[in-house]
Amino acid sequence: MTRWPLPEPMKRALALAQAAAEAGEVPIGAVVVKDGRVVGEGRNAPRGLHDPTAHAEIAAIRMAATVLGNERLTGCEMFVTLEPCAMCAGAIVHARIARLTYAAPDPKGGAVAHGARVFDHPQALHKPEVVSGIGEAEAAEMLRGFFRERR
Amino acid sequence: MTRWPLPEPMKRALALAQAAAEAGEVPIGAVVVKDGRVVGEGRNAPRGLHDPTAHAEIAAIRMAATVLGNERLTGCEMFVTLEPCAMCAGAIVHARIARLTYAAPDPKGGAVAHGARVFDHPQALHKPEVVSGIGEAEAAEMLRGFFRERR
Repeated sequence: MTRWPLPEPMKRALALAQAAAEAGEVPIGAVVVKDGRVVGEGRNAPRGLHDPTAHAEIAAIRMAATVLGNERLTGCEMFVTLEPCAMCAGAIVHARIARLTYAAPDPKGGAVAHGARVFDHPQALHKPEVVSGIGEAEAAEMLRGFFRERR
Repeated sequence: MTRWPLPEPMKRALALAQAAAEAGEVPIGAVVVKDGRVVGEGRNAPRGLHDPTAHAEIAAIRMAATVLGNERLTGCEMFVTLEPCAMCAGAIVHARIARLTYAAPDPKGGAVAHGARVFDHPQALHKPEVVSGIGEAEAAEMLRGFFRERR
Protein backbone atom coordinates (compact mmCIF):
# COMPACT_ATOMS: atom_id res chain seq x y z
CA MET A 1 0.00 0.00 0.00
CA THR A 2 1.02 3.62 -0.40
CA ARG A 3 3.50 4.61 2.27
CA TRP A 4 2.60 8.30 2.52
CA PRO A 5 -0.80 9.90 3.14
CA LEU A 6 -3.06 10.07 0.10
CA PRO A 7 -4.44 13.48 -0.95
CA GLU A 8 -7.91 13.96 0.54
CA PRO A 9 -9.68 14.05 -2.88
CA MET A 10 -8.14 10.66 -3.79
CA LYS A 11 -9.30 9.25 -0.45
CA ARG A 12 -12.79 10.48 -1.32
CA ALA A 13 -12.57 8.98 -4.85
CA LEU A 14 -11.60 5.62 -3.28
CA ALA A 15 -14.59 5.84 -0.90
CA LEU A 16 -16.85 6.51 -3.90
CA ALA A 17 -15.33 3.48 -5.68
CA GLN A 18 -16.14 1.39 -2.59
CA ALA A 19 -19.74 2.66 -2.70
CA ALA A 20 -19.94 1.61 -6.38
CA ALA A 21 -18.76 -1.91 -5.47
CA GLU A 22 -21.37 -2.14 -2.74
CA ALA A 23 -24.02 -1.25 -5.36
CA GLY A 24 -22.74 -4.01 -7.66
CA GLU A 25 -20.97 -1.61 -10.04
CA VAL A 26 -17.30 -1.78 -11.08
CA PRO A 27 -15.56 0.16 -8.28
CA ILE A 28 -14.43 3.47 -9.77
CA GLY A 29 -14.82 6.89 -8.15
CA ALA A 30 -13.97 10.43 -9.25
CA VAL A 31 -13.78 13.87 -7.65
CA VAL A 32 -13.43 17.35 -9.19
CA VAL A 33 -11.72 19.99 -7.06
CA LYS A 34 -11.51 23.75 -7.58
CA ASP A 35 -9.40 25.96 -5.29
CA GLY A 36 -9.23 23.17 -2.71
CA ARG A 37 -13.00 22.65 -2.63
CA VAL A 38 -14.85 19.58 -3.98
CA VAL A 39 -17.26 20.83 -6.67
CA GLY A 40 -18.15 17.48 -8.25
CA GLU A 41 -18.00 13.80 -7.48
CA GLY A 42 -19.34 10.57 -8.89
CA ARG A 43 -19.09 6.82 -8.96
CA ASN A 44 -19.60 4.23 -11.63
CA ALA A 45 -23.34 3.54 -12.15
CA PRO A 46 -24.09 2.30 -15.71
CA ARG A 47 -25.95 -0.83 -14.59
CA GLY A 48 -28.11 0.80 -11.95
CA LEU A 49 -28.99 3.82 -14.10
CA HIS A 50 -29.28 1.90 -17.41
CA ASP A 51 -26.85 4.50 -18.79
CA PRO A 52 -23.69 3.40 -20.61
CA THR A 53 -22.26 6.91 -20.14
CA ALA A 54 -22.63 6.85 -16.33
CA HIS A 55 -18.95 6.53 -15.53
CA ALA A 56 -17.55 8.15 -12.39
CA GLU A 57 -15.71 10.86 -14.35
CA ILE A 58 -18.77 11.84 -16.41
CA ALA A 59 -20.91 12.11 -13.25
CA ALA A 60 -18.25 14.22 -11.49
CA ILE A 61 -17.82 16.53 -14.51
CA ARG A 62 -21.57 17.02 -14.96
CA MET A 63 -21.98 17.83 -11.27
CA ALA A 64 -19.07 20.29 -11.27
CA ALA A 65 -20.37 22.05 -14.41
CA THR A 66 -23.80 22.40 -12.77
CA VAL A 67 -22.30 23.65 -9.48
CA LEU A 68 -20.05 26.17 -11.27
CA GLY A 69 -22.73 27.09 -13.85
CA ASN A 70 -20.21 26.70 -16.64
CA GLU A 71 -19.55 24.00 -19.21
CA ARG A 72 -15.81 24.73 -18.85
CA LEU A 73 -14.15 23.59 -15.63
CA THR A 74 -11.16 25.88 -16.08
CA GLY A 75 -8.68 25.61 -13.21
CA CYS A 76 -10.25 22.39 -11.91
CA GLU A 77 -8.43 19.19 -10.98
CA MET A 78 -9.83 15.67 -11.29
CA PHE A 79 -8.89 12.73 -9.07
CA VAL A 80 -10.08 9.32 -10.32
CA THR A 81 -9.26 5.80 -9.16
CA LEU A 82 -8.63 4.29 -12.63
CA GLU A 83 -7.08 5.51 -15.88
CA PRO A 84 -9.95 7.07 -17.88
CA CYS A 85 -11.40 5.36 -20.97
CA ALA A 86 -11.73 7.17 -24.33
CA MET A 87 -15.19 8.52 -23.46
CA CYS A 88 -14.05 9.97 -20.15
CA ALA A 89 -10.73 11.28 -21.51
CA GLY A 90 -12.73 13.05 -24.23
CA ALA A 91 -15.05 14.55 -21.60
CA ILE A 92 -12.00 15.76 -19.63
CA VAL A 93 -10.80 17.53 -22.79
CA HIS A 94 -14.20 19.19 -23.40
CA ALA A 95 -14.38 20.26 -19.73
CA ARG A 96 -10.88 21.80 -19.89
CA ILE A 97 -9.81 20.02 -16.69
CA ALA A 98 -6.37 21.48 -15.83
CA ARG A 99 -4.90 18.46 -14.06
CA LEU A 100 -5.86 14.78 -14.00
CA THR A 101 -4.57 12.48 -11.24
CA TYR A 102 -5.49 8.81 -11.65
CA ALA A 103 -4.61 5.95 -9.31
CA ALA A 104 -4.35 2.66 -11.24
CA PRO A 105 -3.38 2.24 -14.91
CA ASP A 106 -5.85 0.36 -17.15
CA PRO A 107 -4.02 -1.40 -19.99
CA LYS A 108 -7.25 -3.15 -21.07
CA GLY A 109 -9.55 -0.15 -21.33
CA GLY A 110 -7.55 3.01 -20.66
CA ALA A 111 -7.16 5.76 -23.25
CA VAL A 112 -4.67 8.12 -21.59
CA ALA A 113 -1.44 6.07 -21.43
CA HIS A 114 -2.84 3.20 -23.52
CA GLY A 115 -4.79 2.58 -26.73
CA ALA A 116 -6.36 5.69 -28.20
CA ARG A 117 -4.16 8.05 -26.07
CA VAL A 118 -6.83 10.72 -26.43
CA PHE A 119 -4.71 13.64 -25.14
CA ASP A 120 -1.88 12.94 -27.59
CA HIS A 121 -3.58 14.03 -30.84
CA PRO A 122 -4.06 17.53 -32.26
CA GLN A 123 -7.83 16.78 -32.29
CA ALA A 124 -7.74 17.09 -28.47
CA LEU A 125 -8.27 20.84 -28.18
CA HIS A 126 -6.98 20.84 -24.60
CA LYS A 127 -4.38 18.67 -22.87
CA PRO A 128 -4.48 18.36 -19.08
CA GLU A 129 -1.41 17.79 -16.95
CA VAL A 130 -1.47 14.07 -16.03
CA VAL A 131 -0.24 12.43 -12.80
CA SER A 132 -0.65 8.70 -12.16
CA GLY A 133 0.01 6.12 -9.44
CA ILE A 134 -1.36 8.08 -6.43
CA GLY A 135 -3.47 5.48 -4.57
CA GLU A 136 -2.69 2.83 -7.18
CA ALA A 137 -2.36 -0.09 -4.71
CA GLU A 138 -5.68 0.72 -2.98
CA ALA A 139 -7.60 1.20 -6.26
CA ALA A 140 -6.16 -1.90 -7.93
CA GLU A 141 -6.87 -4.08 -4.88
CA MET A 142 -10.48 -2.89 -4.81
CA LEU A 143 -10.93 -3.77 -8.51
CA ARG A 144 -9.24 -7.17 -8.07
CA GLY A 145 -11.47 -7.97 -5.09
CA PHE A 146 -14.58 -6.99 -7.04
CA PHE A 147 -13.81 -9.21 -10.01
CA ARG A 148 -12.56 -12.07 -7.77
CA GLU A 149 -15.94 -12.21 -6.00
CA ARG A 150 -17.80 -12.29 -9.31
CA ARG A 151 -15.83 -15.07 -10.94
CA MET B 1 -26.39 18.29 -52.32
CA THR B 2 -27.03 14.57 -52.12
CA ARG B 3 -28.70 13.30 -55.29
CA TRP B 4 -30.68 10.45 -53.76
CA PRO B 5 -33.15 10.51 -50.87
CA LEU B 6 -31.56 10.55 -47.41
CA PRO B 7 -32.55 7.83 -44.93
CA GLU B 8 -35.34 9.11 -42.65
CA PRO B 9 -33.18 8.91 -39.46
CA MET B 10 -30.50 11.10 -41.09
CA LYS B 11 -33.17 13.61 -42.12
CA ARG B 12 -34.29 13.69 -38.47
CA ALA B 13 -30.67 14.10 -37.28
CA LEU B 14 -30.27 17.07 -39.66
CA ALA B 15 -33.50 18.61 -38.30
CA LEU B 16 -32.12 18.20 -34.75
CA ALA B 17 -28.89 19.87 -35.86
CA GLN B 18 -30.93 22.78 -37.21
CA ALA B 19 -32.73 23.04 -33.86
CA ALA B 20 -29.33 23.18 -32.12
CA ALA B 21 -28.24 26.06 -34.37
CA GLU B 22 -31.44 27.95 -33.62
CA ALA B 23 -30.61 27.57 -29.90
CA GLY B 24 -27.11 28.97 -30.47
CA GLU B 25 -25.39 25.59 -30.21
CA VAL B 26 -23.05 24.05 -32.79
CA PRO B 27 -25.48 22.30 -35.19
CA ILE B 28 -25.11 18.56 -34.60
CA GLY B 29 -27.95 16.06 -34.26
CA ALA B 30 -28.10 12.32 -33.57
CA VAL B 31 -30.72 9.58 -33.71
CA VAL B 32 -30.67 5.97 -32.40
CA VAL B 33 -32.83 3.46 -34.26
CA LYS B 34 -33.80 -0.08 -33.29
CA ASP B 35 -35.80 -2.33 -35.66
CA GLY B 36 -36.76 0.69 -37.76
CA ARG B 37 -38.06 2.66 -34.75
CA VAL B 38 -36.44 5.80 -33.28
CA VAL B 39 -35.61 5.00 -29.63
CA GLY B 40 -33.31 7.93 -28.90
CA GLU B 41 -32.45 11.33 -30.28
CA GLY B 42 -30.52 14.40 -29.24
CA ARG B 43 -28.90 17.62 -30.30
CA ASN B 44 -25.84 19.48 -29.15
CA ALA B 45 -26.57 21.44 -25.95
CA PRO B 46 -23.40 21.99 -23.86
CA ARG B 47 -23.81 25.77 -23.61
CA GLY B 48 -27.49 25.78 -22.72
CA LEU B 49 -27.22 22.96 -20.20
CA HIS B 50 -23.80 23.97 -18.77
CA ASP B 51 -22.73 20.39 -19.50
CA PRO B 52 -19.57 19.68 -21.50
CA THR B 53 -20.81 16.11 -22.08
CA ALA B 54 -24.11 17.23 -23.67
CA HIS B 55 -23.23 16.26 -27.23
CA ALA B 56 -25.96 15.01 -29.57
CA GLU B 57 -24.69 11.41 -29.49
CA ILE B 58 -24.53 11.25 -25.67
CA ALA B 59 -28.09 12.60 -25.40
CA ALA B 60 -29.37 10.10 -27.98
CA ILE B 61 -27.60 7.16 -26.30
CA ARG B 62 -28.85 8.10 -22.82
CA MET B 63 -32.42 8.42 -24.11
CA ALA B 64 -32.27 5.09 -25.96
CA ALA B 65 -30.83 3.31 -22.90
CA THR B 66 -33.66 4.74 -20.77
CA VAL B 67 -36.31 3.81 -23.35
CA LEU B 68 -34.96 0.27 -23.73
CA GLY B 69 -34.19 -0.14 -20.00
CA ASN B 70 -30.73 -1.43 -20.81
CA GLU B 71 -27.26 0.11 -20.76
CA ARG B 72 -26.43 -1.94 -23.87
CA LEU B 73 -28.02 -0.82 -27.12
CA THR B 74 -27.40 -4.14 -28.85
CA GLY B 75 -28.75 -4.19 -32.41
CA CYS B 76 -29.16 -0.41 -32.52
CA GLU B 77 -27.97 1.95 -35.25
CA MET B 78 -26.87 5.55 -34.76
CA PHE B 79 -27.21 8.32 -37.36
CA VAL B 80 -25.28 11.52 -36.57
CA THR B 81 -24.54 14.59 -38.66
CA LEU B 82 -20.81 14.86 -37.80
CA GLU B 83 -17.97 12.40 -37.20
CA PRO B 84 -18.02 11.66 -33.44
CA CYS B 85 -15.33 13.02 -31.09
CA ALA B 86 -13.36 10.74 -28.73
CA MET B 87 -15.95 11.13 -25.95
CA CYS B 88 -18.85 10.16 -28.20
CA ALA B 89 -16.95 7.38 -29.99
CA GLY B 90 -16.15 5.94 -26.55
CA ALA B 91 -19.82 6.14 -25.55
CA ILE B 92 -20.77 4.34 -28.80
CA VAL B 93 -18.37 1.54 -27.80
CA HIS B 94 -19.82 1.25 -24.27
CA ALA B 95 -23.37 1.24 -25.69
CA ARG B 96 -22.49 -1.55 -28.16
CA ILE B 97 -24.06 0.39 -31.06
CA ALA B 98 -24.03 -2.05 -34.02
CA ARG B 99 -23.76 0.48 -36.84
CA LEU B 100 -22.73 4.13 -36.95
CA THR B 101 -23.63 6.32 -39.94
CA TYR B 102 -22.19 9.83 -39.86
CA ALA B 103 -22.67 12.58 -42.41
CA ALA B 104 -19.68 14.95 -42.47
CA PRO B 105 -16.08 14.07 -41.55
CA ASP B 106 -14.43 16.17 -38.82
CA PRO B 107 -10.66 16.33 -39.36
CA LYS B 108 -10.30 18.92 -36.54
CA GLY B 109 -12.15 17.10 -33.77
CA GLY B 110 -13.19 13.66 -35.03
CA ALA B 111 -11.95 10.46 -33.42
CA VAL B 112 -13.31 7.77 -35.76
CA ALA B 113 -11.41 8.35 -39.03
CA HIS B 114 -9.05 10.96 -37.51
CA GLY B 115 -6.89 11.52 -34.43
CA ALA B 116 -7.50 9.01 -31.64
CA ARG B 117 -9.35 6.58 -33.98
CA VAL B 118 -11.12 5.17 -30.93
CA PHE B 119 -12.52 2.06 -32.64
CA ASP B 120 -9.12 0.96 -33.97
CA HIS B 121 -7.49 -0.11 -30.67
CA PRO B 122 -7.87 -3.36 -28.73
CA GLN B 123 -8.99 -1.21 -25.75
CA ALA B 124 -12.27 -0.62 -27.64
CA LEU B 125 -14.20 -3.67 -26.44
CA HIS B 126 -16.69 -3.33 -29.31
CA LYS B 127 -16.29 -2.03 -32.86
CA PRO B 128 -19.37 -0.80 -34.73
CA GLU B 129 -19.74 -1.00 -38.49
CA VAL B 130 -19.07 2.54 -39.78
CA VAL B 131 -20.64 4.28 -42.80
CA SER B 132 -19.86 7.91 -43.66
CA GLY B 133 -20.86 10.57 -46.18
CA ILE B 134 -24.66 10.09 -46.05
CA GLY B 135 -26.00 13.66 -45.83
CA GLU B 136 -22.50 15.10 -45.81
CA ALA B 137 -23.28 18.15 -48.01
CA GLU B 138 -26.32 19.13 -45.91
CA ALA B 139 -24.52 18.69 -42.56
CA ALA B 140 -21.36 20.50 -43.68
CA GLU B 141 -23.31 23.45 -45.12
CA MET B 142 -25.23 23.83 -41.85
CA LEU B 143 -21.96 23.91 -39.86
CA ARG B 144 -20.34 26.37 -42.30
CA GLY B 145 -23.39 28.63 -42.11
CA PHE B 146 -23.34 28.55 -38.30
CA PHE B 147 -19.69 29.55 -38.00
CA ARG B 148 -19.96 32.10 -40.83
CA GLU B 149 -22.70 33.98 -38.95
CA ARG B 150 -20.65 34.00 -35.75
CA ARG B 151 -17.44 35.35 -37.24
